[in-house]
Amino acid sequence: MRPPRIITLLTDFGLSDPYVGVMKGVIAQVNPAVQVIDLTHQIPPQDVSQARFALMSAYAYFPAGTVHVAVVDPGVGGTRRAIALAFGNNAAAPLGFLVGPDNGLFSGVLAVQPAIAAVELTNSAYWHQPMPSQTFHGRDIFAPVGAHLASGIPLTALGQEISGRSLVPLSQSHPLQIESAGDQGQRITGCVQAIDHFGNVITTISGEAVIAPGWSVIVGDRAIPSGFTYGAAGSGDLIAVVGSHGWVEIAVNGGSARACLGLSLGDSVQVIVPK
Amino acid sequence: MRPPRIITLLTDFGLSDPYVGVMKGVIAQVNPAVQVIDLTHQIPPQDVSQARFALMSAYAYFPAGTVHVAVVDPGVGGTRRAIALAFGNNAAAPLGFLVGPDNGLFSGVLAVQPAIAAVELTNSAYWHQPMPSQTFHGRDIFAPVGAHLASGIPLTALGQEISGRSLVPLSQSHPLQIESAGDQGQRITGCVQAIDHFGNVITTISGEAVIAPGWSVIVGDRAIPSGFTYGAAGSGDLIAVVGSHGWVEIAVNGGSARACLGLSLGDSVQVIVPK
Amino acid sequence: MRPPRIITLLTDFGLSDPYVGVMKGVIAQVNPAVQVIDLTHQIPPQDVSQARFALMSAYAYFPAGTVHVAVVDPGVGGTRRAIALAFGNNAAAPLGFLVGPDNGLFSGVLAVQPAIAAVELTNSAYWHQPMPSQTFHGRDIFAPVGAHLASGIPLTALGQEISGRSLVPLSQSHPLQIESAGDQGQRITGCVQAIDHFGNVITTISGEAVIAPGWSVIVGDRAIPSGFTYGAAGSGDLIAVVGSHGWVEIAVNGGSARACLGLSLGDSVQVIVPK
Repeated sequence: MRPPRIITLLTDFGLSDPYVGVMKGVIAQVNPAVQVIDLTHQIPPQDVSQARFALMSAYAYFPAGTVHVAVVDPGVGGTRRAIALAFGNNAAAPLGFLVGPDNGLFSGVLAVQPAIAAVELTNSAYWHQPMPSQTFHGRDIFAPVGAHLASGIPLTALGQEISGRSLVPLSQSHPLQIESAGDQGQRITGCVQAIDHFGNVITTISGEAVIAPGWSVIVGDRAIPSGFTYGAAGSGDLIAVVGSHGWVEIAVNGGSARACLGLSLGDSVQVIVPK
Repeated sequence: MRPPRIITLLTDFGLSDPYVGVMKGVIAQVNPAVQVIDLTHQIPPQDVSQARFALMSAYAYFPAGTVHVAVVDPGVGGTRRAIALAFGNNAAAPLGFLVGPDNGLFSGVLAVQPAIAAVELTNSAYWHQPMPSQTFHGRDIFAPVGAHLASGIPLTALGQEISGRSLVPLSQSHPLQIESAGDQGQRITGCVQAIDHFGNVITTISGEAVIAPGWSVIVGDRAIPSGFTYGAAGSGDLIAVVGSHGWVEIAVNGGSARACLGLSLGDSVQVIVPK
Repeated sequence: MRPPRIITLLTDFGLSDPYVGVMKGVIAQVNPAVQVIDLTHQIPPQDVSQARFALMSAYAYFPAGTVHVAVVDPGVGGTRRAIALAFGNNAAAPLGFLVGPDNGLFSGVLAVQPAIAAVELTNSAYWHQPMPSQTFHGRDIFAPVGAHLASGIPLTALGQEISGRSLVPLSQSHPLQIESAGDQGQRITGCVQAIDHFGNVITTISGEAVIAPGWSVIVGDRAIPSGFTYGAAGSGDLIAVVGSHGWVEIAVNGGSARACLGLSLGDSVQVIVPK
């Protein structure tokens, strides 16, 4: 018998209550051999957009077939659908599975990976028994469904098939704007999509857009030079790099770019790419 | 050979020091095949009452036979006893085991589950060697004892049997008060027993008391209507629900009831149940 | 086949981003059977000294052969070496392995344990593919190298052997000072090397120095009596103990010595040991 797939957990539950531990207990009730890895549980409460970014940054670093259970779920108990889906280029061996509420949480992964199949979680045989609560579907639906999926239950057994095109999108409020900057080259305008624990500011501008040497970032009236490593800047100085997740990122060598620049999520950022 | 039981850990150690990791290392020294699940390590320092609530909310969601090691231990090194016990209705197959200091931590679980047998941890053969410190019994006594219990050592080998009735209780400072509210029906007065990461306020009033439709919560001079889901209230509005742990809970749809009402642990809360 | 070794993780990544989860994913890609235990991820950003202390306090409580991957890495992408080493007294069965940047992080463990062999991580066959980023060697080099080491790849396969004497030391800014205090006995002057989650203040003075009964701690103009347990002091009172990690520690029974004394890392502390 093949070992079960790995489950990752991503929530906004924090770590001060036993909610995450309880989800792991329910998984172990279904199959104690499943290995669970925490992505993070410190998504700001109900911030679907930050959860989307975290999942998109992380999924590629797990073994093929990993089941990602993500629960940032402001609509719990209401009319939003509970879903599971498989993604990747090989229908016979999915790159991974996604389990959670249909609220846009998975739209980041699905922007780069095709959905193979999707279901609405309607088969209560795979839920925690007796009846699910109306306030904690992480425990009562998503954790047990994830555990069954990790144990080899086929996706299509979990509920009714739905179209991948029917999934709720997450509106990107700031699409990239690309324009000529005259002699300077090209100007790409994006925004801040995440800020990490170190205060590194991660933009919506892909690193693939800035392969020309000499690119720089403009924030307000500051021009920030680019480099390959944080240490290419002097200690305490600003630097723009293509970060480990592939996005243009602003950092301070040994400090916090967030604190230095006063940037917040959604703030506008420009990149100048020379001719 | 059957696989080892699962161990859960619940402490007030926080996550900034390696104390919790060290407990897991000691467990792995005894038996690297034991699976450990964290309940939480962010109980406020020395708050036995919050630890009691967290354990009571969580134990039922783990496989039968799980060993719950809980260390919130203001009396470490003093005269309080170190104990382990089995609970449930089947002496041959306990629902679970509890390991930790005898300070009332387990009184929540034992209010709903009968103790099968209890021992004082007097057999140092199952402790970390050489001698336990006087300040970290989590590492030196409770973790290794939990690991041996999870590995199949019988409870009675761990020390001298004691009576379940001899365990230290935790005084409930606010027992429920139930009285007539005239034409309105019945008034139940309890208090706040926990506030979670989302700011949801969890009372001492059981959901079983409020099965009549139309029940509501009174806090000060505010009446809060009840519903089945957070989303039954308008965005930013207060709502009372029976929470996922079975207690009457006050929430704000998309916000924090704690912040909205300014409630603290122990504050009085009333429920009105119509005739 | 023998089961893989355990890996511990120690970083300054925090838990709000998925960085730690991603390292675990990369480990599982190499070998899903490896068990990972978190020491802590809440080392203050880039504080190599606190990471050194945490690792030194924890390593002894893990099974022989455990692989400790530690990533507090202000020089990532620059010229600092990436290293791995084996330590202990038995070259055929190392007590443990250390993997991380060569910046002094391991100097605490190596102050008490001899290095058996050390390598610079130059063999990219054991790195995450395709090319490592210049900003996240935890994911791209240290996690996969740790996973291969835990799976039985010999240390010497990971890169070029280097001398243990060539490792970067971490300067101890406050060596102990021992002098006569006349009739009072001996005065040992050290400093604060760590403060834990409870506010316990851990000094650089080893407990082995204070075996004489009646020793006390002097902070400013306060004399703090010693005892064996926190509870030997009255509730809210200061007490000096030899802590669970073996160092002289100042605590408050049921409170925070940090808050009570206003001490910070590096502050001077004296111990008086009577004749």
